[in-house]
Amino acid sequence: MESISMDQTGRHPVTERTGRDALDCLLSPRSIAIIGVSSNFNKLNGRVMKFLLEKGYTGRIFPVNPKYEEVGGHRCFAAIGEIGEVPELAVISVPAKAVPGQIEAAGRAGVRAAIVFSSGFGEMGEEGRRAEQDVVEIAKRHGMRLCGPNTLGVINAFDGAFATFTQYGMGPTSAGPVGFVTQSGAFGTAIAALARKRGLGLGYFANTGNETDVTFADCLGRIVEDPRITTLAGYIEGITDGPGFVTAARRAMEMGKPLVVTKVGRTASGARAASSHTGALAGEDAVFDGIARQYGVIRARNEEHMLDIVDMSTTTACPDGRGVGIITQSGGAGVLMSDRAEEVGLEVPQLSEETVARLKGILPDFGAAGNPVDVTAQFIADPSMLKESVKAVLDDPNVHVAAVWLQLMDGFVDTLTETFRELKEETEKPFVVSWVAAPEEGLRALRELGICALRGAEPTIDAIAALVGWNEARKAWLADEGDGAESAPLPAPGAGFVPTETTAGMLLEAGVPVARLGLAASADEAVEIAEGIGWPVAVKIESADILHKTEIGGVEIG
Amino acid sequence: MESISMDQTGRHPVTERTGRDALDCLLSPRSIAIIGVSSNFNKLNGRVMKFLLEKGYTGRIFPVNPKYEEVGGHRCFAAIGEIGEVPELAVISVPAKAVPGQIEAAGRAGVRAAIVFSSGFGEMGEEGRRAEQDVVEIAKRHGMRLCGPNTLGVINAFDGAFATFTQYGMGPTSAGPVGFVTQSGAFGTAIAALARKRGLGLGYFANTGNETDVTFADCLGRIVEDPRITTLAGYIEGITDGPGFVTAARRAMEMGKPLVVTKVGRTASGARAASSHTGALAGEDAVFDGIARQYGVIRARNEEHMLDIVDMSTTTACPDGRGVGIITQSGGAGVLMSDRAEEVGLEVPQLSEETVARLKGILPDFGAAGNPVDVTAQFIADPSMLKESVKAVLDDPNVHVAAVWLQLMDGFVDTLTETFRELKEETEKPFVVSWVAAPEEGLRALRELGICALRGAEPTIDAIAALVGWNEARKAWLADEGDGAESAPLPAPGAGFVPTETTAGMLLEAGVPVARLGLAASADEAVEIAEGIGWPVAVKIESADILHKTEIGGVEIG
Repeated sequence: MESISMDQTGRHPVTERTGRDALDCLLSPRSIAIIGVSSNFNKLNGRVMKFLLEKGYTGRIFPVNPKYEEVGGHRCFAAIGEIGEVPELAVISVPAKAVPGQIEAAGRAGVRAAIVFSSGFGEMGEEGRRAEQDVVEIAKRHGMRLCGPNTLGVINAFDGAFATFTQYGMGPTSAGPVGFVTQSGAFGTAIAALARKRGLGLGYFANTGNETDVTFADCLGRIVEDPRITTLAGYIEGITDGPGFVTAARRAMEMGKPLVVTKVGRTASGARAASSHTGALAGEDAVFDGIARQYGVIRARNEEHMLDIVDMSTTTACPDGRGVGIITQSGGAGVLMSDRAEEVGLEVPQLSEETVARLKGILPDFGAAGNPVDVTAQFIADPSMLKESVKAVLDDPNVHVAAVWLQLMDGFVDTLTETFRELKEETEKPFVVSWVAAPEEGLRALRELGICALRGAEPTIDAIAALVGWNEARKAWLADEGDGAESAPLPAPGAGFVPTETTAGMLLEAGVPVARLGLAASADEAVEIAEGIGWPVAVKIESADILHKTEIGGVEIG
Repeated sequence: MESISMDQTGRHPVTERTGRDALDCLLSPRSIAIIGVSSNFNKLNGRVMKFLLEKGYTGRIFPVNPKYEEVGGHRCFAAIGEIGEVPELAVISVPAKAVPGQIEAAGRAGVRAAIVFSSGFGEMGEEGRRAEQDVVEIAKRHGMRLCGPNTLGVINAFDGAFATFTQYGMGPTSAGPVGFVTQSGAFGTAIAALARKRGLGLGYFANTGNETDVTFADCLGRIVEDPRITTLAGYIEGITDGPGFVTAARRAMEMGKPLVVTKVGRTASGARAASSHTGALAGEDAVFDGIARQYGVIRARNEEHMLDIVDMSTTTACPDGRGVGIITQSGGAGVLMSDRAEEVGLEVPQLSEETVARLKGILPDFGAAGNPVDVTAQFIADPSMLKESVKAVLDDPNVHVAAVWLQLMDGFVDTLTETFRELKEETEKPFVVSWVAAPEEGLRALRELGICALRGAEPTIDAIAALVGWNEARKAWLADEGDGAESAPLPAPGAGFVPTETTAGMLLEAGVPVARLGLAASADEAVEIAEGIGWPVAVKIESADILHKTEIGGVEIG
C-alpha cells in the first residue's frame, strides 16, 4: 500500500513516488479515478465503471461525480481531490468545456496520467485546437502525462484495467501476448474485434486520439517492455514522434518481438486524404517506409493481413529461411501457393531425392511427391498420410516452413485436430495450416493447441513471407550491432520537435534516401544554399513552435 | 414426353432427338441414370441419389445396379439398356476398370452425355492415360460427350440436378445467378462453400476433371447462354481449349455478363508446380492474360477476391466511370481506401463546391466534407446523416460509385438496414458497403435487399476496380465491334486441336504478343526458318495426336 503525504510544493496529498512513472500509470494503473462517471452503465460515461467491474480490475476504483454517493458498489467522490489518496490514472469523461477544470483538479491532486475521452478539441478546427493547447499546458504544469483528447482510452487486459469506452469491451476480451496501439478509435476497435473473432488475445489496446502529449511511440515503447507481450501491432495514420518510434521499433527488434503495423497514406490520394484528416504529409510515408525496413517493422497492407501475421507470430516459431514446403489435397491450391510464394520472395524448393522417395512410400500412386505435395483426398481415410508427408517435407534440408492446405472437412475436425497435435509434437520446424471454408470449431481447436490456421492460401503465404522477412532483417541488424558500429544516440521518445537536420542525419544513417538540405537564417543564405544544391528546391519554415508547416503557408516549392 | 424408337444404325432404342444436344443433356438433363448407385446414401456412390431426392430434382431418375430392385423409392435397373427409355445423362460411379464397359453400354443405349466420377485414369500415369484414351474412343464412337473422368460432376441448381458427389451438396444450395466452372474438384468445392457462406446462389457448378472431352470452355459456353445466369466464375489450372475459351469469353462480353476467373500458374514457380499437376506450360499464362485483357475477362488473384467481385456483380450496377466517393466513420479507413483506389487505377475525385456545401449542411462540425467524407460516429444517433451524405456524394458529377465504410454496429443492424434500403431506393448510381467485423445478421439483411456488403476496405475497392475495368473493356470492345471490323471466325468450341500457326494468328489479332514462328517439314527447313527468325529458337513437334509435347520430348530449346 502506498502511504499518503504532502509534497514539497504544498500541493494536495500525493502517493509517495514508487518509481512508477506516468506511462506505467497510464498503461498499468494500480488505481483509477473516473471523472464524470455515470451510474447508468448503458451510457458512454458509464462504460468504464461497467468494464472495470465486469473484467475484474485488480486495482482500486474511484468514481468521481458530485451527483452520486455511490456507483457500482463503490463510494463516489464529489471531486478528485476528496478521494484521500492519489489515483494513478484519471479518466476524464466530461464535456469539452469542463475538461480544463478537471485536468487542473487532477494535476493538483498529484495524478501522474490522465485519459481525456472528450471530443470537441483539435479535430474541431482552430477554436478546438486552442482549447486543446490550454489543456496540454495545464497538464504539463503539473507534470502529468495526457492521453487524448478524443480517444477511446486504454486497456491493460492482464489487470482488467479497461480505462476505455470502446465497443470492443462489450463481450469477451481475453488477455494475450499481443500489444495493440491504434491512432484511430473506430478502425482500432474494428481490428480488436477481428482479433477477438480469431481468438487472438490482446494484452493491451491503446488508442492515442489527438496525441497532444502521449504518442503512438510512447505507448509502443512502454508495452514492448512487458514480458507477457510477444508481438506488437499498430494502426498508424501519421507518426508525430519519429525518434520515439525509431527507439521503440529498435527495442522491439532487440527483444525479438515482431512489430506489425498498418500505416495508411502510402499513395498521393491517400496522403491527400490523410492531410485533411491528420495533417500528415505525402513524403512522410517514404520516410516511414525506410525506417520500417531498417528496423524490421513489418508493414501490413490492411487489417486482415496484419492479423494474419500477428496470428502466426503468436503461435508459430519464425521460419529460419525462405524455403516453403507446400502440402495440399488439391493440385491447384499448390500452384496458387507457389505463385504467391514466388511473388513475395519465398522459395518453393525442389525436394531432395531422399524426401521424394520417402513421400512416394507414403502417398497413393496418384498423389504428387514433388513440392507442392498433393496428398489427395485419400488422407481423409488415412490421416497419418498427411502427418507423415508434412514430416517428410519438413525434414528436407531446403525446407524451412510447411504450409498445409485444407478445405471444408466438416465431420473430420476431431481427426484433423489430433493429426496436427501429433504433428506439432513430432516436428521442430514450423508449419502453418491454410484452411479454406474451415468449420469454425476446427479453427478454434487448432488455436487452442497453439497452431496457426489461416483462411486462405495467399494469406498463409503472405504471413510466412512477412515473418521470414522480419527474421532476415533481425539477423542483419544483430550482425550490424555485433560489429560494434555504434549508432548516434536517439532523442528520447516524447522529446518533441527534432530539427530537420538532425532527423535527416538519422534517416541517412538508417539507409533512407533524403534530399540534400541546409538551414538558412535569411533569404540570401537560402538562395546561396539552393545554388549549391541545385534548383528547384523546397523552402520550409523551421521552428519548434510550428509543426504543421503547410497550415501556415510555411512551405514553398520552386 | 419423348417416344422410343430404333435408330437407323440398328443400335439400342434411343429417344427421338428433340433438338437438345449433348451439352444441354449434361448441364440441364431431363433424366439421369446413376450407374453403380449405392443404396447407402452415406457412401460416395450413394450421394447422387441422395442429392437428387433431397434437392427436388425435377427430371426422371434411373438408378442402375444389378444388386438392387429399388433405391430411394425408385425402381433400380440391372443395366442401362433395360430402362426402356434413354436417359439424357448417365452418371458413372464404378471402379476405373469397369468404366469402359459402362460407357459402351450407355453409348449403345443412345445416351448423349456421361459424367465419369471414377479416378484412376490420366492422373495415374501412363497406364491410366491409355485406359482413359480407350474410354474416350468408346464415347466418341457413340457420339456421346464425356465429362471427366476424375470429376466431382455437375450441378444445375435451378432444376435440382445434382449429378455430383461434391461435399458442397451437403447443406443448403440455393440456386442463383452465378454460373461456376472449376477445373479442380477440391478447390472448386471450397469456393462453392465460401459462396454459400456469403449467401451467393450458384445456378451451376461444373467440375471438368481430366477434360478428356468436355472442357472448361464447353461448360462456360453453354452456361453463359442461360438467361438466369448474370455472372460467370471460373477456377482454371490450364486452358486446354483456347479457341473455345475465347468464344465463350466473347459471348459473355457480348451479353454483358462479367466472367471472373482465378487462374493459377502465373509465375515460374507456379508454372513448374502446374506442369507436374496438369502439364500446363509456363508461357501459356502470358497468352491467357492477353486473351483475358482483350475480352474483359476479370482475373481475380484468389478465391476471396473472385467472390468479392462476383458478389458485387450480382447485386450492384456496374459503375460507369472511375470516380469513387468514399464515406466512412473513420478518417483512417478513408485514407486506406484512397490509397488502394490509387493503387488499382481508380480515382478519388475532389468534390464540387456544391457537394461540399451540401455535405457541410449535413455533417457535424468535426466531420470531414472532402472525399473521403468522414461522417463520424454521430451518424449512429442520426442515421439520416449517413444516408444524406452518400446521396450528396453520389450526386456529384465526378463520382460514379460510392464506397461506404462501417465497423461493428452490433445493436444497430435494423437501423442500418433501413437506412441502406432507403438509400438504394433513392439513388441511381451504385454503392457498395464495406463492413469490417460486421454482425452476421447485418450482412445477411443487406444481401436480402440486394445490397453488396464486403468485409474490408481493400476488398471493396478491389471489387469496384475490377468491375470498372470490365465496363471499360466492354465499352472498348463494343466500339470495336461497331466499327464493323470483322474478326476471323473462330473454330467452334470443342473443335479440338488447332494448328499453332492458326492459334498464333488469333492471338496476334487479339493483341497478344506472339513469338515469330514457322512450320517446318524437315530438319533442313527448320534451320532455314530459324536463320530467318534469328537464334535461339524453340522447336516443337506439331501433330494433332500429340498435345502434351514435353511429355514425349517433343520440345527442344536452343
